[in-house]
Amino acid sequence: MTGPRFDPASLAFNDQGLIAAIAQQQGSGEVLMMAWMNAAAVAETLATGRVTYWSRSRQQFWRKGETSGHHQRLVEMRVDCDRDCLLLIVEQTGPACHTNRRSCFYTAIRDGAETEIMAPEEDA
Amino acid sequence: MTGPRFDPASLAFNDQGLIAAIAQQQGSGEVLMMAWMNAAAVAETLATGRVTYWSRSRQQFWRKGETSGHHQRLVEMRVDCDRDCLLLIVEQTGPACHTNRRSCFYTAIRDGAETEIMAPEEDA
Repeated sequence: MTGPRFDPASLAFNDQGLIAAIAQQQGSGEVLMMAWMNAAAVAETLATGRVTYWSRSRQQFWRKGETSGHHQRLVEMRVDCDRDCLLLIVEQTGPACHTNRRSCFYTAIRDGAETEIMAPEEDA
Repeated sequence: MTGPRFDPASLAFNDQGLIAAIAQQQGSGEVLMMAWMNAAAVAETLATGRVTYWSRSRQQFWRKGETSGHHQRLVEMRVDCDRDCLLLIVEQTGPACHTNRRSCFYTAIRDGAETEIMAPEEDA
């Protein structure tokens, strides 16, 4: 069912003007990372097909892969029921995490202990 | 590699004392929802194996499924590199979304329009 045209301004941004965005690899379904977008980053991501976040630490656009080469190509953007979270289905080039791991979620809690379940990738 | 014992207080909570938690169905990899936890909700979830969030609107624990019966059994909790986001691998009973859909992310942006990609489940 196709509804209204999508307007980034219709999202429920927090008091810093940001919305959480989860990146998930197409096909494998692996959850790669969670970061933040403002309305302009949402619009740029949709317009370019390359995922752009808003860096809270640097207070600037964070065009994923611009320095690392580890781009995220947007396959599809989805909005949740409360309109305060985005799910980005992506095609990730190389590792998503700044630690050079495929996913940022490489630490599992097992038997009460932090357990590393994913090693950094070798540089090509 | 097994590391230190996990202490919920070691997480990077926001200024409201909360951390984002993404629920993902074991096996299928479907991303079901994103909600928030405080340190006590994290501890309760690990202790009971049933996912408990913190409801920001009601300012109380939200024991997923307590009223709806749509529980989330925790399979594994993972922490991201920044320690400011959790990934919960779960076994979801019934729909995760309050709209009776399996996932909260049932609206896709396709060709610039909001498109419903998932119907509510029939009540059993």
